[in-house]
Amino acid sequence: MTLYRKAAITGIGETEYSRSKDGSGLSDQAMQLQAVERAITDAGLQRGDIDGIIPSPHGRGFTYEGFSENLGLREVNYSTTLHFGGANGVAAMQTAAMAVATGVARHVVVVAGRNGYSGSAKISARPGLPGANFENMREFESPFGASVPMHFYALMARRHMALYGSTSRQFGMVAVCEREHALLNSSALMKKPMTIEDHQNSPWIAEPFRLFDCCLESDGAAAYIVSAADAARDRPKKPAWILGIAEGHPESPTSVATRADMLRSGVAIAAPRAFRMAGVAPGDLRAAMLYDPFTFLVIAQLEGLGCCRPGEGGPFVEAGEIRRGGRLPVNTHGGLLSQSHSTAAINHVCEAVRQLRGEAGAAQLAQPAPILVTGNGDFGDGAVAILGD
Amino acid sequence: MTLYRKAAITGIGETEYSRSKDGSGLSDQAMQLQAVERAITDAGLQRGDIDGIIPSPHGRGFTYEGFSENLGLREVNYSTTLHFGGANGVAAMQTAAMAVATGVARHVVVVAGRNGYSGSAKISARPGLPGANFENMREFESPFGASVPMHFYALMARRHMALYGSTSRQFGMVAVCEREHALLNSSALMKKPMTIEDHQNSPWIAEPFRLFDCCLESDGAAAYIVSAADAARDRPKKPAWILGIAEGHPESPTSVATRADMLRSGVAIAAPRAFRMAGVAPGDLRAAMLYDPFTFLVIAQLEGLGCCRPGEGGPFVEAGEIRRGGRLPVNTHGGLLSQSHSTAAINHVCEAVRQLRGEAGAAQLAQPAPILVTGNGDFGDGAVAILGD
Repeated sequence: MTLYRKAAITGIGETEYSRSKDGSGLSDQAMQLQAVERAITDAGLQRGDIDGIIPSPHGRGFTYEGFSENLGLREVNYSTTLHFGGANGVAAMQTAAMAVATGVARHVVVVAGRNGYSGSAKISARPGLPGANFENMREFESPFGASVPMHFYALMARRHMALYGSTSRQFGMVAVCEREHALLNSSALMKKPMTIEDHQNSPWIAEPFRLFDCCLESDGAAAYIVSAADAARDRPKKPAWILGIAEGHPESPTSVATRADMLRSGVAIAAPRAFRMAGVAPGDLRAAMLYDPFTFLVIAQLEGLGCCRPGEGGPFVEAGEIRRGGRLPVNTHGGLLSQSHSTAAINHVCEAVRQLRGEAGAAQLAQPAPILVTGNGDFGDGAVAILGD
Repeated sequence: MTLYRKAAITGIGETEYSRSKDGSGLSDQAMQLQAVERAITDAGLQRGDIDGIIPSPHGRGFTYEGFSENLGLREVNYSTTLHFGGANGVAAMQTAAMAVATGVARHVVVVAGRNGYSGSAKISARPGLPGANFENMREFESPFGASVPMHFYALMARRHMALYGSTSRQFGMVAVCEREHALLNSSALMKKPMTIEDHQNSPWIAEPFRLFDCCLESDGAAAYIVSAADAARDRPKKPAWILGIAEGHPESPTSVATRADMLRSGVAIAAPRAFRMAGVAPGDLRAAMLYDPFTFLVIAQLEGLGCCRPGEGGPFVEAGEIRRGGRLPVNTHGGLLSQSHSTAAINHVCEAVRQLRGEAGAAQLAQPAPILVTGNGDFGDGAVAILGD
């Protein structure tokens, strides 16, 4: 068997996204609980129906115990924790689908969130999380000044520029298109139009990345519920069926510089399995929600997924093909670059579900299915989901 | 569907267990890698066949990245991390079975281990691990002096004594029977016979627990491989089929004292699901490997599993029924009390597999199937597996 149509997303929930020095007014835990409660309501379920939980180890208060006690869950039949950074929100969909497909649980909630802006000073003193194995980084990257994600992605972007001649303007077009989409989304943080000149005039952060190549830091949480096939059909809203799902892990997962091919990321590795399971080809996709901590990563993923050939991602973006109305609309909510960052790609999952339900408001696409969602962790762990009617 | 016969354990591997101030001579990571390599060899597989890994967050060097890089795994299609302390080794069997039953992976390795004796000074300075949510403990237990596992289990044991009249001699008989079994197992650390008088004369550690009610601290690691049904049939050794598997989580999972019923643990909650899946009744079991950090917990689990009625666990043990030759032989390898402690119950899983294969040497039971294995975490998270031919 495979996980094709064995599970569906039946509920989504997000907190307000904010970016204020005064903070969100909620603890990380309260924020995550609010997102979970909204997802439960959206799915037309009661708290006691939730029998599985996959928290994400971002922020604080993310343990299953915290959810079980604070929500008063009756019986938790399944829980686990993933440690793939930004890939967690989509990789967890695979584990949740496994749990409901095998009868271990009926309704599994996946959640992530934190005060990623107002609480960032606390979070940057992060403990040595399991899943963070920094040995190679310490040996091969830190001594040369690469210590935070933008440095690693800058290395990859430089490599792409050297191999294929991709340009800063092409990177910038990712930011411009996503900002256009964000202007249609009332929950997006960035509300000011951006031109390619705005991007080109923004300061360097880590070459070749300018300010507008880098995603937001923000406060917020998001959650979704994966239900078993038979349980999904009873829900009030149209289920978003999981057609294909896979996680992928790069060679040399603890560093970028020690890989034979630093552009071969977990998303590229997972993609063929997800497409095969779904019976969908890259050309069949009608939209994609791509994890976008940096503009370059959208281009890299378009190529890694097979939506563009290697080296053709830049020109594809430059031609406006990732706009609404283009060949493959990307991040119709504004993405990490212009909506929010703090939910390990769960805001991307929520937008995919809204599109499939016809609930995306001004950003609604006429025919959004099948739609693809990715998550991507700091060192290139990746996950790919393909959702459909 | 359920996980009944959808997966089997095809390989097991253990390091030497040791208890020396000079240490094991291996790092936590090297130890875990050795156990994994032995399990791969035992299963007749190559490193490249392993496409899933579930490490346990005990000790250091336990991330999937460490295994992927050090073993040179080709493609990891699945990984996750559980945070249920002593329940990890058995709870992970459920997740591994989910992965192979749904085609996500073919061969998933589960591993745990650490320098739990020689490295304990380092480990006691453990960071705030995800999964360890100590809020209730800090509020309701620590102020009264309860801060380590033996204190929490002492509370439960006291409650059991008050409700049912169970006695220190009954607890002691668990230690005596397990020591008898350890004497048949060359890999067991404890090699000296123990009488009930030895137990009764041993000093109090945390009343009602005496020294010999408490498990060993030791250095060591263990691993096993869960394979898909079709892949399991090709292996050189007889597969140990997973007939029933479940995890359970207690009400108020972050403390013992705040539960309505402190004796209702995760093992008791998981048991009915595991038995139902397996089509096995407690009376059908031929042997049980019960997680035994403290003697009392064996008695509590016999009752929680339904092998004895509430309050009858003590007399059952006192009558010698958990000995080889008794009605339900328990921990034929010597358990945490007399073989070793450091592997989150994976040494219990390894013994169950040896029994099913007929590889248990002097401790071999004539008819060991079906056999039950439990894991149990600090605050009562539990997991139950039922294995058979």
